[in-house]
Amino acid sequence: MKVCWEQVAGGVTAPRGFRAAAVRCGIRQVETDDLALLVCDTQGAAAATFTTNRVAAAPVRWSRRAIATGRVRAAVVNSGNANACTGERGERDVATTAAKAAELLGFQPENFLIASTGIIGRYLPIDKLLEGLPRVVRLLDGSLEAGERFARAILTTDTTLKQAALRCDLGGGASVTLGGATKGAGMIAPGMATTLTFLTTDAAIEAPLLQKALKRAVDRTYNRISIDEHMSTNDTVLCLASGLADAPPVRGGTGAARRFEAALTELCQTLAVKIVADGEGATRLVRIEVTGAPSVRLAVAAGRAIADSPLCKCALHSGDPNWGRFVSAAGYACPPLEEARTRLFIGEKLAYAAGAPGPATEAELAAAMAGREVLLRLELGLGKAQATVWTCDLSKEYVAINADYHT
Amino acid sequence: MKVCWEQVAGGVTAPRGFRAAAVRCGIRQVETDDLALLVCDTQGAAAATFTTNRVAAAPVRWSRRAIATGRVRAAVVNSGNANACTGERGERDVATTAAKAAELLGFQPENFLIASTGIIGRYLPIDKLLEGLPRVVRLLDGSLEAGERFARAILTTDTTLKQAALRCDLGGGASVTLGGATKGAGMIAPGMATTLTFLTTDAAIEAPLLQKALKRAVDRTYNRISIDEHMSTNDTVLCLASGLADAPPVRGGTGAARRFEAALTELCQTLAVKIVADGEGATRLVRIEVTGAPSVRLAVAAGRAIADSPLCKCALHSGDPNWGRFVSAAGYACPPLEEARTRLFIGEKLAYAAGAPGPATEAELAAAMAGREVLLRLELGLGKAQATVWTCDLSKEYVAINADYHT
Repeated sequence: MKVCWEQVAGGVTAPRGFRAAAVRCGIRQVETDDLALLVCDTQGAAAATFTTNRVAAAPVRWSRRAIATGRVRAAVVNSGNANACTGERGERDVATTAAKAAELLGFQPENFLIASTGIIGRYLPIDKLLEGLPRVVRLLDGSLEAGERFARAILTTDTTLKQAALRCDLGGGASVTLGGATKGAGMIAPGMATTLTFLTTDAAIEAPLLQKALKRAVDRTYNRISIDEHMSTNDTVLCLASGLADAPPVRGGTGAARRFEAALTELCQTLAVKIVADGEGATRLVRIEVTGAPSVRLAVAAGRAIADSPLCKCALHSGDPNWGRFVSAAGYACPPLEEARTRLFIGEKLAYAAGAPGPATEAELAAAMAGREVLLRLELGLGKAQATVWTCDLSKEYVAINADYHT
Repeated sequence: MKVCWEQVAGGVTAPRGFRAAAVRCGIRQVETDDLALLVCDTQGAAAATFTTNRVAAAPVRWSRRAIATGRVRAAVVNSGNANACTGERGERDVATTAAKAAELLGFQPENFLIASTGIIGRYLPIDKLLEGLPRVVRLLDGSLEAGERFARAILTTDTTLKQAALRCDLGGGASVTLGGATKGAGMIAPGMATTLTFLTTDAAIEAPLLQKALKRAVDRTYNRISIDEHMSTNDTVLCLASGLADAPPVRGGTGAARRFEAALTELCQTLAVKIVADGEGATRLVRIEVTGAPSVRLAVAAGRAIADSPLCKCALHSGDPNWGRFVSAAGYACPPLEEARTRLFIGEKLAYAAGAPGPATEAELAAAMAGREVLLRLELGLGKAQATVWTCDLSKEYVAINADYHT
């Protein structure tokens, strides 16, 4: 599809009809905002995808039920504590949070999606959260600055702000805006929603259509990134639609629906790649394109094996063209692979073809791995399916961050 | 089964009827033996398991065919070069090696299993290997010292020698000896044979029975260890039987066959755990016991998810009782998991039960993770299947070793 979007400033408050805010309530030990609120001014549409981990955090279990009511129009988010593996007390803390937020805003509890990120297995300091809620409600604001503050408050070990917004041309002179904020930077792996992500749009769209578009967008973007292959207990991607754009409703099966989904996918892609680029300890962003696969599933499997292998990630870290690691990872992840048909490019250089090295020299391959961004292209020569998987390198800094995260 | 074995000194030359040797031929840059030879004095039985990686090294392809002839009685092994991803030239180099070894020993080429370990994607320096072969043949010797020299020559990034031998009581006053040597320490993951391993026995046993026993032993031991989840292109486990013990033949379906398999499994277990204990950069050996699983497959999957997660491995490295990482790894790997039925112990301390933390304190859990060996016990409460998976921690040293291995 031809590009039907352009980047615009801001994040979750870029579309019409959204207000956001964040405060510090003291859940995190560092002095930073750790409680955030996002509100849609209308009872529009909501869609969400959640972790497929059987150990789902209390806020995820709450939010699944809330989304099912079709009435979600706001999100309360805290960082610093995942409220996962916290049993009945965790459930109560979520219900208390939603009830208090509802009281403050004149909403119902089921209007709230609740999301948490941080350490697993510790009870939420609910008093601190409840103390912060009235303050964050008072700060609600539709400015781009408020959206940015929201985006900062959901971060944990991230080193960069992760937000983006697009204007989407729906055709016929109509356009809508989409915005979003996301967080990394550990427990990031494909196969589920991955991480906390809040998307907004001023499009008028029915919830079922929004849900379908969101699921496909997440499958193609968030589910194809990997930092450490560890699927979180808290992964949530929420999309709220206010319907306040000056554009006709987006209806299923139309060109406008296809354009909207393309823009939503682009927004998810932009945000997902920001996560990988800021992976814990990462120094390189790696794009793995797998083509000629017998199926998309096997293309993703081959790409993901490279993305997840610590041996591959170490070679990517040092910029060492030890391409045998990439080929052998594909070899155990993609059973139909045939060496004679397989080609591996690093950048534009052919590292491996017809079962043997070359023709590129080691110096050429090393040069192709020297930059901040590395492209690996694996041609399987078996079919027409393809997929792109994103990952980062594995550094000593990753070990340092994650060996000491808890204490 | 009651223990029917006892440890004895030595490795591959501990059983009767085996000679071994090793020399330096210059394939590795470091000054160490890199060419090894193991010969059975009789045309006994041979069994082997190989990598399931679709990118199989040239020596693996050769050895699969050789084993199928039923005539393997010797092995030529080199370290420093995997001869993988080397196309037709790689195939020719293996054939040349086998032909030369056959000429020197008066054997046929198909009497040789060939095994290589080292860098992938570089052509074997065949002239160096051919120069070394007559020297290694001249050194062949049945002493325990010769077996140890063989075991040292197959190592790469290993820091410790890995050999073991057992005497197995077959019942009725008869006993046989089993010996073995193995190597780590990277590209180690379950799901295939894993690494290069050479097992010997003086039992008289038919090849089909030996093959069945070996496959089951490998499935329960080598296929349940993980250092870095990267399946090698060269994994080979060979078992040769000379038949020279002073004991009646081991026949299928007898108590002697069960005892032999139990001892073979114990030998594989001993060698496999040595690999994990010497994982690249490893400082801790981790035993993950999963019980109450609906199936062995899911027990292994849950254990393996913990063993493979870099987040779990970093927590294990620092001895940080961040047990939420262990529980969440099981949660994405074992779909039937139910939080209410799940319990996680670190050592003897209960970290997580009925979906919530405790009752053990953080200090108690930290103490349980402080030693050189750590036990994680995950009780799923779903069924009767169980499995034990072994892994090691992830350290900055792993990154250092693997970021710089190639150059």
